[in-house]
Amino acid sequence: MRVNGAPSSQVSILDRGLHYGDGLFETIAVFDGHPCLWEPHCWRLLRGCERLGIPAPDLHLLRAEAREIIQEAGPGTPRAVLKILLTRGIGGRGYRPLVQPQPTRVLYLSPWPDHPQDAESEGVRVRLCNLRLAGNPWLAGIKHLNRLEQVLARMEWDDPGIFEGLLCDPQGHLVEGTSSNLFLWQGGALRTPDLGGCGVGGVAREAVIATAQALGVPVSIGRVSVADALGADLLLLSNSLIGLWPVRQLEERRYDPTSIPADLLAALRGRIFSP
Amino acid sequence: MRVNGAPSSQVSILDRGLHYGDGLFETIAVFDGHPCLWEPHCWRLLRGCERLGIPAPDLHLLRAEAREIIQEAGPGTPRAVLKILLTRGIGGRGYRPLVQPQPTRVLYLSPWPDHPQDAESEGVRVRLCNLRLAGNPWLAGIKHLNRLEQVLARMEWDDPGIFEGLLCDPQGHLVEGTSSNLFLWQGGALRTPDLGGCGVGGVAREAVIATAQALGVPVSIGRVSVADALGADLLLLSNSLIGLWPVRQLEERRYDPTSIPADLLAALRGRIFSP
Repeated sequence: MRVNGAPSSQVSILDRGLHYGDGLFETIAVFDGHPCLWEPHCWRLLRGCERLGIPAPDLHLLRAEAREIIQEAGPGTPRAVLKILLTRGIGGRGYRPLVQPQPTRVLYLSPWPDHPQDAESEGVRVRLCNLRLAGNPWLAGIKHLNRLEQVLARMEWDDPGIFEGLLCDPQGHLVEGTSSNLFLWQGGALRTPDLGGCGVGGVAREAVIATAQALGVPVSIGRVSVADALGADLLLLSNSLIGLWPVRQLEERRYDPTSIPADLLAALRGRIFSP
Repeated sequence: MRVNGAPSSQVSILDRGLHYGDGLFETIAVFDGHPCLWEPHCWRLLRGCERLGIPAPDLHLLRAEAREIIQEAGPGTPRAVLKILLTRGIGGRGYRPLVQPQPTRVLYLSPWPDHPQDAESEGVRVRLCNLRLAGNPWLAGIKHLNRLEQVLARMEWDDPGIFEGLLCDPQGHLVEGTSSNLFLWQGGALRTPDLGGCGVGGVAREAVIATAQALGVPVSIGRVSVADALGADLLLLSNSLIGLWPVRQLEERRYDPTSIPADLLAALRGRIFSP
């Protein structure tokens, strides 16, 4: 654990990350000592800094600190999760930030999650959440620390057989899962919801889009209705820790997880878990 | 400063308040050792706990801790600000909380803000913000820790002559200021925006509404357009630290701060600053 480079497990009670969720985060898969998609995670962090007006971290410093805490975990840790938090730090008058904020940088490693064994091949069950994501173009796409919507949505179910809940925007269009992005597979093409109004622009989502396009698979980004999802050949969920999983069931609708070619799925997943 | 009752100025980097803004806060004026509107602040905190599913704090304990830190500040502190933060604490799997969360309780005192001397009598200047508050009935009214909208809105201006910015919902209806609630004074009656879609249900706002009604002043709650505000006799801003201030100017529109009877204004303000 590092807070601004020093070994620490605490932050000030005055930190704006705590008071306002005034900051950003990245959740990064670490395989055999290597952070996956390190550069895209850094780019997204920088884009978030730009949008929120938080001074960007020194990426060499960030890389060095990440390397340190990964090395501390030792070679007996084949898989782990690196979390980076970057807040606007302490100071300002109420909501008004300092003109020159001193961000708080937190890095720590946590154990690899205990994912269902057969999720990659058999797919997972998902549900539709009642909560709707508020549309706010000022915050859309950013992986910021205001995540109460996701917390409340995740509290809607406790059936361990349901892995994820899908969220709609106020107009009823599908946006994403509580902690994953959504893809539809239909007629040999991928489609994923537009995130201009709300949602998190996932690094894994970007990797899937770019890799699919490079492989000649058409990918479209736009409005996705619940009816579109129910009518698709297959749904897929992406994030940095699961990679890309098929959905075998959404509410009562069942899908065939083998609808997407196995080699394409492996290629997309492989990109998410590569450096 | 107290964290879960113990003297401390830090919280764990794993706290869900930091990661997700998963918690609530209260900002309380302390006059001559007495927290103003203590019970309404506690009631709001409990309502927030209920809506977010966070175990409610023991109010006797909270009162005792507040008393302790106020006494520590000593009798030489006629005015101060007591801030209470209550988060869902540490734990859970990603967004999913523990079934029995152990909340983190933070209390601390900070200096009374350096308000403009003549704000009560002369009124303040306000502007219209470009950022619009996202409408989310699941979060509307709650004083939760997801406050990036307010931070970004407050970053829209740095003219020290402008005290506050007013925020609209996505439909263009006025909701509130970045850190205050809004009242319109017109024809001897008060009107304040409905907060069913977004906004914070201010304790000072409640006090104004209840006190005005008790004094026989009609108060209505409903939609307020920008045109309504421009056409009102006067605008007023409320919060627990300013009390109730007239607005002397919104963008180019000037108001007469004496449009509201001085004794009514004093009575409303007096209620906000009473125990």
